[in-house]
Amino acid sequence: MPAETYDVRPIGRVRSPLTDPAQAPKQGDEGAPPAEIVLDPAVVAGTAGLRPGAEILVFTWLHQADREVLAVHPRGDRTRPVTGVFATRAPHRPNPIGLHRVTIADIAGPVLTVHGLEAIDGTPVLDLKPVLGPTAQR
Amino acid sequence: MPAETYDVRPIGRVRSPLTDPAQAPKQGDEGAPPAEIVLDPAVVAGTAGLRPGAEILVFTWLHQADREVLAVHPRGDRTRPVTGVFATRAPHRPNPIGLHRVTIADIAGPVLTVHGLEAIDGTPVLDLKPVLGPTAQR
Repeated sequence: MPAETYDVRPIGRVRSPLTDPAQAPKQGDEGAPPAEIVLDPAVVAGTAGLRPGAEILVFTWLHQADREVLAVHPRGDRTRPVTGVFATRAPHRPNPIGLHRVTIADIAGPVLTVHGLEAIDGTPVLDLKPVLGPTAQR
Repeated sequence: MPAETYDVRPIGRVRSPLTDPAQAPKQGDEGAPPAEIVLDPAVVAGTAGLRPGAEILVFTWLHQADREVLAVHPRGDRTRPVTGVFATRAPHRPNPIGLHRVTIADIAGPVLTVHGLEAIDGTPVLDLKPVLGPTAQR
């Protein structure tokens, strides 16, 4: 049905001591070390208004994922029943977009230091968005 | 810096009475009408485990966005100072990925009826993920 495709162009990359997907925590609140988002200098103007202490959503492209997978054992636990990928946070899915809620610790030009990012070193970053409160802060 | 690009392949499309971006609410909690997500039949196996009543995140490709924009007046309000797109939820940004938190009302094969989706009719859908609680429900 949906015939056309679109190209995503990374705006930067993750720099992290995490290098092995098997060793990385499955979610950022499960012990991820501090990491950096190193932006392409061409997009730095897009960070105006971001501040240390703010929570943001980081969108990544999970470049090592298997895009053909449609069902998995949640969290790789074979005792759990096979579930559709859209009902899980498994990296494997047709469009392997990762969503990470992190806190900005520091901003220095194109480099954002963040807490709570479980993506591995080198992961392409696609977008950053502010976390929305229930009301106005948009 | 990040030279390579990746292709996103829509898994479905939004079917909605909203057709004009200028008329659509800026967020789903601002009065979006019920809408449908019509999936490609090839990916329906990925929905196993989704249930009516569940909250999910819908990732879309905002195909009418301007990808060259790096700074905007938030919510199009010219009385607000120009802000980097990564500090706003503006659709215009280098990778115009939309994030929508919706509630599933019904599932019928490849068609999910949802509440709270403010995307316009025809918007490509890239991914669905469950909303995570603070703990286990993954």
